[in-house]
Amino acid sequence: VTVGPGPRVVDLNADAGESYGVWRLGADEELLDVITSVNVACGFHAGDPATIDRTVTAAVGRGIAVGAQVSYPDLAGFGRREMAMEPGDLASCVLYQVGAVAGFARAAGGRLGYLKPHGALYHRAARDEAAATAVAEAARRYDPQLPVLTLPGSALAAAAEAAGLPVVAEGFADRAYTPDGSLVPRGRPGALLVDEAAAAEQALRLAGSVRSLCVHSDTPGAGPIARRVRAALTGAGWTIAPFASTGR
Amino acid sequence: VTVGPGPRVVDLNADAGESYGVWRLGADEELLDVITSVNVACGFHAGDPATIDRTVTAAVGRGIAVGAQVSYPDLAGFGRREMAMEPGDLASCVLYQVGAVAGFARAAGGRLGYLKPHGALYHRAARDEAAATAVAEAARRYDPQLPVLTLPGSALAAAAEAAGLPVVAEGFADRAYTPDGSLVPRGRPGALLVDEAAAAEQALRLAGSVRSLCVHSDTPGAGPIARRVRAALTGAGWTIAPFASTGR
Amino acid sequence: VTVGPGPRVVDLNADAGESYGVWRLGADEELLDVITSVNVACGFHAGDPATIDRTVTAAVGRGIAVGAQVSYPDLAGFGRREMAMEPGDLASCVLYQVGAVAGFARAAGGRLGYLKPHGALYHRAARDEAAATAVAEAARRYDPQLPVLTLPGSALAAAAEAAGLPVVAEGFADRAYTPDGSLVPRGRPGALLVDEAAAAEQALRLAGSVRSLCVHSDTPGAGPIARRVRAALTGAGWTIAPFASTGR
Amino acid sequence: VTVGPGPRVVDLNADAGESYGVWRLGADEELLDVITSVNVACGFHAGDPATIDRTVTAAVGRGIAVGAQVSYPDLAGFGRREMAMEPGDLASCVLYQVGAVAGFARAAGGRLGYLKPHGALYHRAARDEAAATAVAEAARRYDPQLPVLTLPGSALAAAAEAAGLPVVAEGFADRAYTPDGSLVPRGRPGALLVDEAAAAEQALRLAGSVRSLCVHSDTPGAGPIARRVRAALTGAGWTIAPFASTGR
Repeated sequence: VTVGPGPRVVDLNADAGESYGVWRLGADEELLDVITSVNVACGFHAGDPATIDRTVTAAVGRGIAVGAQVSYPDLAGFGRREMAMEPGDLASCVLYQVGAVAGFARAAGGRLGYLKPHGALYHRAARDEAAATAVAEAARRYDPQLPVLTLPGSALAAAAEAAGLPVVAEGFADRAYTPDGSLVPRGRPGALLVDEAAAAEQALRLAGSVRSLCVHSDTPGAGPIARRVRAALTGAGWTIAPFASTGR
Repeated sequence: VTVGPGPRVVDLNADAGESYGVWRLGADEELLDVITSVNVACGFHAGDPATIDRTVTAAVGRGIAVGAQVSYPDLAGFGRREMAMEPGDLASCVLYQVGAVAGFARAAGGRLGYLKPHGALYHRAARDEAAATAVAEAARRYDPQLPVLTLPGSALAAAAEAAGLPVVAEGFADRAYTPDGSLVPRGRPGALLVDEAAAAEQALRLAGSVRSLCVHSDTPGAGPIARRVRAALTGAGWTIAPFASTGR
Repeated sequence: VTVGPGPRVVDLNADAGESYGVWRLGADEELLDVITSVNVACGFHAGDPATIDRTVTAAVGRGIAVGAQVSYPDLAGFGRREMAMEPGDLASCVLYQVGAVAGFARAAGGRLGYLKPHGALYHRAARDEAAATAVAEAARRYDPQLPVLTLPGSALAAAAEAAGLPVVAEGFADRAYTPDGSLVPRGRPGALLVDEAAAAEQALRLAGSVRSLCVHSDTPGAGPIARRVRAALTGAGWTIAPFASTGR
Repeated sequence: VTVGPGPRVVDLNADAGESYGVWRLGADEELLDVITSVNVACGFHAGDPATIDRTVTAAVGRGIAVGAQVSYPDLAGFGRREMAMEPGDLASCVLYQVGAVAGFARAAGGRLGYLKPHGALYHRAARDEAAATAVAEAARRYDPQLPVLTLPGSALAAAAEAAGLPVVAEGFADRAYTPDGSLVPRGRPGALLVDEAAAAEQALRLAGSVRSLCVHSDTPGAGPIARRVRAALTGAGWTIAPFASTGR
């Protein structure tokens, strides 16, 4: 089941809930006014329980779809370091995080809308079949109808499809792509588009081929970029709406 | 709503899922053959995701009710050290753990049956109104019908009652009581009843006044004690059955 | 052995190294240009190894004395939550942190200059004799000459004195005091002096009676406050110098 | 500088201090009566501060050389999962652990004797030059004379040699080797020699070509195996002695 781009309907997603204890990160407040789906950190790469609680409650209150942004267990590395987890352990880790965020969504009167891997797990699940299958299997065990947000053509897209899960294609408004369609790795020069106009242009270019566009929360100027992307899309006749149920 | 002891029906509960990574703890396999409710570690004092997954799956498969044994976040101290958490943070921590275990229960084809605090949080919620309210509130936010397993007469019993939650009175077959009805603190001589006959006798004495009896998993000889307790109860005409729904 | 205020010599100390992974905290760079002693987070409330490494190396390079700011193990609570640790466990935790920071100091060509507890442990060691003794004992085991930086008149001052350790009296330039000489708890209105002039005035008032003055790194405007405090002190004829050896 | 096998002098090393909180692991007490060097867990894959304290104190008291068994930060995976840490972060992590264990050794009246990587880091540093250099560099920064215990011919042996550190060749009495001289990976059938006679025979075979022989603490029957290995070596005329200074 692939959830394709509707007739000029597109979703805007961003990460949030990435603060931890006293440490603040991201432009959550600003972004929640712009996006229609929120990838909530689940406590493994970021997000203490109080932060997740606050983030999910705010999202549900605004009708934003809540996604579990599952990660390797690696606070110190923000989930950006590949870890050689066995598929079975990985599946249990994913299911743990999915349940935790789903509990907050339920408590807030909403429901878990989708799953999206974070950081190194995003990249591994995009190319490694065993990891992709573990992630998809965890999602399916939790809810056979849970949408999986991922790169089109990725191993995770295939594994989720095989598991009978809705697959939602994602593009990145503010990350540079290589000619072959993969992302320029973080840390490389030009990996992040910090120019609002460039991000807006890229969003318009991608909107036809993906159902959801990601704008980053930790890009400098994340709020203004997201607003510019949204304005460009609506200006071009796109409706901005979540792909997942918000449970309300 | 207090769930009293039925006409000669009593539940046997024990902790499980308290291994962590390579470290093994508890007589889980033996106990799952004897008990009717299992208090599953949620990852905060013990229990990595794979251990929780395995434990919950085994419990659901045997028709055992699954409880979330919520704790302070303290692996190094096994949740036995009091921590001065703010009630708001505590409630979010409890909700996080409840969701995580509930997710595994759902994935296994069952459902979360109840909540029981662990260790230092058990004791704090038994006597501190603010903590008790935080725990009860987290349970209520997740499910207004979620039973709370706790000491009769405790602050948590009162807070759960006030929140409209089912309250289930618990007794300890293998922990010594003081004359005023509280538990002899761990570490004191005689705190644990390691004599099978003494535990069985105490179980028979308590069965009339509580709905669930706890047998410990980390007591030396936990398996044989639990079997002896169960045999004594059934021999005396008690039916051993969970108080909570197993979702099947 | 009490290290008293020298003849118009005073030390300026501040916390640093409190970032963790991607999360940034504190005005480290600015403060290292102003202070003469740095309280380095040891990884238990903040400070990943790379952050500690960078912070200690920068401090040693500038001739700043390096202190180990030991804490309860509580990243999520930034070491600000009281934890009921047994004195023996506490002493081992303190020694672990002391060794870790001392290793970085040695690697940078310097040496560990002193110990100062952080957050909830600072407050507990100031009033609880068992905890104070555990902290002092850990310091003494590492180095019988290791200075301990603490509130004058505190339980830790007494315990360190009893252990034969140099005790260094500390005052706070930018924290409000109660009439009885203790600190107004964080979170209370007015607990932090965010006015540069008020902090500078308080520093001048305290300089005669303490050997070291603390300026905070996480106060809004921490850098400007520290510079103003330093300017006021030097303007009034005080020499700003560390109380501890920098090992160079 | 390579520390070769002396004229019929060999060292016996084993891991210890791998308990964590309530969780017990290893036959530490038994092994400390047999070995001459102990690889102490540093808190990253195992070993809470109280456990490390106890282990190091016991070792120093018996004249056993204390090694820091540095690891990736991965309690849940016991340091056995490869993690893609940047060399700079890895070096800081190693230095942190070295300092922590060295502090306990110093407090116990001894000194840190050597460094040995654990688990996945052992294997990575054996074959990956960047990681090997990071580990060696951390050791050198702490002490330019710190011996590094590692596989002969490994990348770490080369990097330590290049850094001017003493390199100590290690063999495994109770791990099976492949024909090319590397270890049969854990988990493969026959990876661990659990037969005492086989381990003793392998020890005799290796003693001529390595300076230290590792016996495992988590092999079933670790104590008896170690005693049998030691008896076989002494029976064949080998002197069992540490390669590193114990500081006493």
